[in-house]
Amino acid sequence: SVALETEEMHPADLADVAEALPEDRLVAFLSALPTARAADVLEYLSEDLRSLALEAMSTRQAAALVTEMTPDDRADVLEELEEERAEEILQEIPAAARAETEALLQYEPDSAGGRMTTEFVAAAETLTVEEALRSVRAMARTERREALYTVYTTDAKGRLLGVLSLRELLAAPEGAHLSDVAWTEVHTVLPTAPQGDVVRLASDYDLVAVPVVDDDRRLLGVVTVDDVIDAIEEEQTEDVQKLGGMEALDEPYMQIGFLAMLKKRAGWLSILMVSEMFTTSALQHYDKELERAAVLTLFVPLVMSSGGNSGSQSTSLITRAMALDEVRLRDWWRVAVRELPSGMTLGAILGVIAIVRILLWQHFGFYDYTMQGRTPIGYVAGTIACALVGIVTFGSMTGSMLPFLLRRLGFDPASASAPFVATLVDVTGLIIYFNVALLFLRGTLL
Amino acid sequence: SVALETEEMHPADLADVAEALPEDRLVAFLSALPTARAADVLEYLSEDLRSLALEAMSTRQAAALVTEMTPDDRADVLEELEEERAEEILQEIPAAARAETEALLQYEPDSAGGRMTTEFVAAAETLTVEEALRSVRAMARTERREALYTVYTTDAKGRLLGVLSLRELLAAPEGAHLSDVAWTEVHTVLPTAPQGDVVRLASDYDLVAVPVVDDDRRLLGVVTVDDVIDAIEEEQTEDVQKLGGMEALDEPYMQIGFLAMLKKRAGWLSILMVSEMFTTSALQHYDKELERAAVLTLFVPLVMSSGGNSGSQSTSLITRAMALDEVRLRDWWRVAVRELPSGMTLGAILGVIAIVRILLWQHFGFYDYTMQGRTPIGYVAGTIACALVGIVTFGSMTGSMLPFLLRRLGFDPASASAPFVATLVDVTGLIIYFNVALLFLRGTLL
Ligand SMILES: [Mg+2]
Ligand SMILES: [Mg+2]
Ligand SMILES: [Mg+2]
Ligand SMILES: [Mg+2]
Ligand SMILES: [Mg+2]
Ligand SMILES: [Mg+2]
Ligand SMILES: [Mg+2]
Ligand SMILES: [Mg+2]
Ligand SMILES: [Mg+2]
Ligand SMILES: [Mg+2]
Ligand SMILES: [Mg+2]
Ligand SMILES: [Mg+2]
Ligand SMILES: [Mg+2]
Repeated sequence: SVALETEEMHPADLADVAEALPEDRLVAFLSALPTARAADVLEYLSEDLRSLALEAMSTRQAAALVTEMTPDDRADVLEELEEERAEEILQEIPAAARAETEALLQYEPDSAGGRMTTEFVAAAETLTVEEALRSVRAMARTERREALYTVYTTDAKGRLLGVLSLRELLAAPEGAHLSDVAWTEVHTVLPTAPQGDVVRLASDYDLVAVPVVDDDRRLLGVVTVDDVIDAIEEEQTEDVQKLGGMEALDEPYMQIGFLAMLKKRAGWLSILMVSEMFTTSALQHYDKELERAAVLTLFVPLVMSSGGNSGSQSTSLITRAMALDEVRLRDWWRVAVRELPSGMTLGAILGVIAIVRILLWQHFGFYDYTMQGRTPIGYVAGTIACALVGIVTFGSMTGSMLPFLLRRLGFDPASASAPFVATLVDVTGLIIYFNVALLFLRGTLL
Repeated sequence: SVALETEEMHPADLADVAEALPEDRLVAFLSALPTARAADVLEYLSEDLRSLALEAMSTRQAAALVTEMTPDDRADVLEELEEERAEEILQEIPAAARAETEALLQYEPDSAGGRMTTEFVAAAETLTVEEALRSVRAMARTERREALYTVYTTDAKGRLLGVLSLRELLAAPEGAHLSDVAWTEVHTVLPTAPQGDVVRLASDYDLVAVPVVDDDRRLLGVVTVDDVIDAIEEEQTEDVQKLGGMEALDEPYMQIGFLAMLKKRAGWLSILMVSEMFTTSALQHYDKELERAAVLTLFVPLVMSSGGNSGSQSTSLITRAMALDEVRLRDWWRVAVRELPSGMTLGAILGVIAIVRILLWQHFGFYDYTMQGRTPIGYVAGTIACALVGIVTFGSMTGSMLPFLLRRLGFDPASASAPFVATLVDVTGLIIYFNVALLFLRGTLL
């Protein structure tokens, strides 16, 4: 039988098998497994497929399956379904599980509450170590399967008093009371906290579970480390996509619909292009200069793109450092003081390369940048080099300060995307470029 | 005393306190704590500071501290020190710990071996559940403190046979043998595997520890989930920095030296600028056309940047999907088939916006794009719109295919940075632009 053959497989691997099946065989496959096992497989199935399965099977079967899931996954699965179908299934599951699930469904999926599970181990701190261990064992044998590796001590009202790891419980001397061995400084989050806060706690304190408490410090649930990892990967995907100059997709690339993806991309692309139109306006403004000093046109893309590139470096560095909490809002000045000399040095390096390129081409007669000798070659090279220093410096400063500005204004610093910075620098860069040119070439070409 | 006052604090918080102290007080602070506690604090201290502390204290004290650390952190700390100092300290630690540490030091820090610890729970599968639990408890009481939540069953030669979680051990019926309850399909990595492989296993199978085995499947160590999270964050930082168009810093932004940072940034910036010089060559090639149809100059930045922006979107989407293993090498064709219509549609949207802008400006007399009536305005607008469709499509294709090409050639797909793609598109985009212009404007301006 399917159940026997697959007995030793991890549910994640079983889910891969299920995903490879034709869609109309999925329900039959799940039905061939013991309910608890099918529930585990459901947890690892892609969003699309598990919704499909729960739509296709009878309400009773769906309810039986969903009841076997851990509370957090049960809530997630129901959240993904059409509201009506979710309601039907909810009506069929036992009252306690229903209440628990309805409570979890109130929270945003990307908040601490949306990530937490309600099956944790809480014990009175008056318990002895042996009593606590017996109760952990009893819990391990019931359906309360998750979040077993951390024991929370609470008072009569369910308020969090302390914490100890199962490792510490196992190591504790016999006869000790929980109050003797528990740690009383517990880091917690509110259920409305963004999942990024949960991630920082788990990462900074190496927790296998992050406790979620209400305003009265009553323990509501815990986020287990496997779900912390999901949160990390989700947040990081959002950040990378925003840095790339679009809205976060919120769905895997291969699964999102064509129109949904277009919507996430077209908005920013249009905004960026409309902003970039200021370069057209700037060029229109300088059209007389361009006519007289046509040589300037040749270096427009070169000079502008270098500013965008250094800006892209800075914005990636700073948004990432902010995501890791290495850099905070108040550090903006320290960052500015690092980026200013960095930008100037990088600009100078590029300037030297540009001078070499221009002098070589002129020397070997590949191109005449003096416009038939109307200006010395040094003036042209000087214009490009100085413009590069100015624009690369401006790019570094824009790229590093924009994330701070966005955060200060309440936006996501990751929206300071590489294309956004490049656009800002393109527009401003042209103005820098023409002003440097006016300085160098006035009296010869201009 | 310091020890008493800070007794309830998490070592990570104590490390924050230590980092806020003047550097010359650091050793005194660590000495005031019990050795095991000071070792925990050392684990959470920044790389710079803990190296500093271990340099400043006596070799004997350093050895005592380091001996108390878990094997993985001990190896990490010694790896960061000057080789000579590390050797001095190694000579002073007990022989068993020294051998263990030297073995770990052989692996690259960002490999499975570099992340693993050697303190895991292995048991013969003939043990009963109660015996195994007793031995776990004994281990919890000795120095073997990490990686306690997964029990591995091994044969007489130390080869991995099965795995069960501590939760499953606690839930197992009394009298059962480990062989009855352990899972025999165990996912493992080799010590030389990149840490990204460890991350995928932990994330996909929700593991709290990933087993590392040699070629004979002998269990060498495990990577615990807290270190998996460090690996995730490190890999993500690398990817974001590469996507931003530079080498990965390998150090926190606020701690890396000025010159070290410049080196990581200047290389790519220079390569990108030298490549961007092909735009200068392209513009030189078309200088006659530019003179006759000066109006074309005005839209060069606009048209080129749009291609770079759509390319940046695609490359972020694909490199991230690759990092999550959602997209593999063989999927390149499915991606191409999605990106081609996406690029064309996005280009068409931008084209329409550009047409509206040009017609409005012409209509209201803000600028005369016909060059004194020498060409119909529709020809100019048509050139820009068609060039946008071509360039945005080309940008999407380049941005999405470059990561596949890089991976195919054995490079990191994350090196397909936004600036890299933008540069490729800038150069090619100019050529597309001028050819579209020749098509539309031949007979009028050209
Ligand atoms: Mg949820
Ligand atoms: Mg950590
Ligand atoms: Mg969960
Ligand atoms: Mg999960
Ligand atoms: Mg979010
Ligand atoms: Mg975020
Ligand atoms: Mg550009
Ligand atoms: Mg290591
Ligand atoms: Mg997972
Ligand atoms: Mg460790
Ligand atoms: Mg660690
Ligand atoms: Mg790496
Ligand atoms: Mg990588």
